[in-house]
Amino acid sequence: MNVTLSATLAANEDIERRRHAGQRVLNLAFGEAGLPVHPALQERLSAASGQNGYGPVAGAPALREAAAGYWTRRGLPTDPALVVCGPGSKPLLYGLLLAIGGDIVLPVPSWVSYAAQADLAGMRSLPVATLPGEGGAPDPDRVAAAVRRARAEGRQVRSLLVTLPDNPTGTLASAETVKRLAELARDLDLVIISDEIYRDLVHDPAAGFVSPAELAPERTVVTSGLSKSLALGGWRIGVARLPAAGLRDRLLAVASEIWSSPAAPVQQAAAYAYTEPAELVERVAASRRLHAAVARAVHARLVRTGVRTDLPRGGFYLYPDFTGAPGLDGLTTSAGLAARLLDEHGVGVLPGQVFGDDPRALRARVATSLLYGETAEQRLAALSAPDPLGLPWIAASLDHLGETLAALTAR
Amino acid sequence: MNVTLSATLAANEDIERRRHAGQRVLNLAFGEAGLPVHPALQERLSAASGQNGYGPVAGAPALREAAAGYWTRRGLPTDPALVVCGPGSKPLLYGLLLAIGGDIVLPVPSWVSYAAQADLAGMRSLPVATLPGEGGAPDPDRVAAAVRRARAEGRQVRSLLVTLPDNPTGTLASAETVKRLAELARDLDLVIISDEIYRDLVHDPAAGFVSPAELAPERTVVTSGLSKSLALGGWRIGVARLPAAGLRDRLLAVASEIWSSPAAPVQQAAAYAYTEPAELVERVAASRRLHAAVARAVHARLVRTGVRTDLPRGGFYLYPDFTGAPGLDGLTTSAGLAARLLDEHGVGVLPGQVFGDDPRALRARVATSLLYGETAEQRLAALSAPDPLGLPWIAASLDHLGETLAALTAR
Repeated sequence: MNVTLSATLAANEDIERRRHAGQRVLNLAFGEAGLPVHPALQERLSAASGQNGYGPVAGAPALREAAAGYWTRRGLPTDPALVVCGPGSKPLLYGLLLAIGGDIVLPVPSWVSYAAQADLAGMRSLPVATLPGEGGAPDPDRVAAAVRRARAEGRQVRSLLVTLPDNPTGTLASAETVKRLAELARDLDLVIISDEIYRDLVHDPAAGFVSPAELAPERTVVTSGLSKSLALGGWRIGVARLPAAGLRDRLLAVASEIWSSPAAPVQQAAAYAYTEPAELVERVAASRRLHAAVARAVHARLVRTGVRTDLPRGGFYLYPDFTGAPGLDGLTTSAGLAARLLDEHGVGVLPGQVFGDDPRALRARVATSLLYGETAEQRLAALSAPDPLGLPWIAASLDHLGETLAALTAR
Repeated sequence: MNVTLSATLAANEDIERRRHAGQRVLNLAFGEAGLPVHPALQERLSAASGQNGYGPVAGAPALREAAAGYWTRRGLPTDPALVVCGPGSKPLLYGLLLAIGGDIVLPVPSWVSYAAQADLAGMRSLPVATLPGEGGAPDPDRVAAAVRRARAEGRQVRSLLVTLPDNPTGTLASAETVKRLAELARDLDLVIISDEIYRDLVHDPAAGFVSPAELAPERTVVTSGLSKSLALGGWRIGVARLPAAGLRDRLLAVASEIWSSPAAPVQQAAAYAYTEPAELVERVAASRRLHAAVARAVHARLVRTGVRTDLPRGGFYLYPDFTGAPGLDGLTTSAGLAARLLDEHGVGVLPGQVFGDDPRALRARVATSLLYGETAEQRLAALSAPDPLGLPWIAASLDHLGETLAALTAR
């Protein structure tokens, strides 16, 4: 067991320790949505505070029905009996690995926990590079070769994972790439796990979104949760949409032995959220606008400094590539880059290496969602501001980042 | 992956389906505490409904400190830095299996999820029978032989589990047995996992309780939670007390990749609970008295029918042995016994087989905690009644059980 503390959680704890010790650190390392709980959800949680039964392993019927409605409204007709809820989408993803078995194709770079979970589950991952600007989806041309090679070596490859839109890159695979992966999965008989936890945070809601579950419904699991769109990370609630009863039953078997069910009061609040009442739809829309505005502002500062960075399309991440930027001649690894940013400039980011990227590539994930303020008041103000970039605390953080980038690349 | 839905959760779901279909079923199959949430805990949950950060993987500092105090007051001085919280003690137990690695000695019979979790974690369990009347602790005389035999076969055996007091038998291993196991664990270099989730529900609080953590502090992990003593099963909160930083760090690594942290609002309520304010101490005491009274009443009915059953010492379980009872000549398995009780008599119990017991032994677990009432009002009344057995709904359930036992054994 060689797994270490999740890189993203570890970085956040390190930064929080530094801040408690009085250091001024801009935390761009952690994927927390950085926004307050909507009062309607607080009320629902309170109203459910008398609920203490374990309830069904799959989740409360009201939550499964609401989640089914959520997907149905997005063009994915869903049977509530094929919805499984868990204490976060993270445990659901882990449970799926155990329930599916075999090795898994992962995009590179990809979220830190996919590969770590595969290790814990005793399976191997097949890392496959993504196409430029299309993070989260392994390059279809390389997938087939990688799977056939692994199978020729006697490995059982049973699944393929996509993140739509992507963490760490903030980009979104094209409809064409998703279509090709869905066809490939059919040809190669792979289950597709489509992690769509950032789906409602695609910056341009008119841009269109294609889930592999539309194209290969018989073999696609969709996972989601309320951690990002409604900032409920600490409430630990996730949902999975299963393609068939067989895999659902195996997932439930795993769930019943590892976590039983999500917290009952949280399930009731989540059931309300998934019915998508107007007040919460509005909150998600405001969050989306804020995430988009700040991520784009950070993008502009990176590009201005000469750092190549894909335009963010969803969520609150950017994945700049500092390779070739001036002033970085001494740096040879992403870990070195992240360490210099933190130690010398008080800016915490995650090195590309922890996402499975080449350690020598000077890439890092910049999470922009902890820039909205230090207090709930500031964050609420950021949510409702017509021009959040003009708020003094956000402007100051962007200035800090801009100065850091200038200093870093001026060496 | 041959794991099926947790036997206890599956039985409960089956019984609930039958009840919804209009069948009258006495649910004696499920280990839910069957009591309402204390209003003070509801208030704390509501007050924390704005908390949505993931927080530290180990749990909120206030919760770790409170849990450390809880153990310190029980003769186990505890460093909050060695406390790890999880969404239930079940995921903590699973995480410990991965963190410790190797095979594990399990008492037989024992809680359904230990062996299933070991399977999921890719390890094997070494089942060792318990001493008569001392469920939850493997017979020390057999442990050494089993471990040496397994090691001679090249297996790595690294841990030993005890449940104090026990589920499914409701009994408690003697101080002498715990002492011998602690010595053995030292001789054999085994980690002891001591599941003490029912500790505060030992019926006679003056009876004394010896944790292996007192005797072998360098190698004992204690797990607990609020599911049983405060009936918060559906809130999913557990705590573990680690012997040293090394194992703690491995557990945190696993936790960070599988579940991140327990629900933040639940952690705040749990922090309050573990400070043991008078109102909650009183509630636990009332629960203990109720569990003891009803479990003993069921014991009396079993014994009256000629069914051998150990006197329950803690929690809300009995583990009767119907072998040799009249009228059961046609029955050859515990599964058959449980099926007959459910289908012909409307009484749901769990067959001994699911606890790892010999399938041909006519033993079953009887959980008495769902006898307290159908409504929160009835359960509250049961909690505060000087003579809960005299409450009409409890008396009726006991009569139903008594009649069932008479009919079953009169065939």
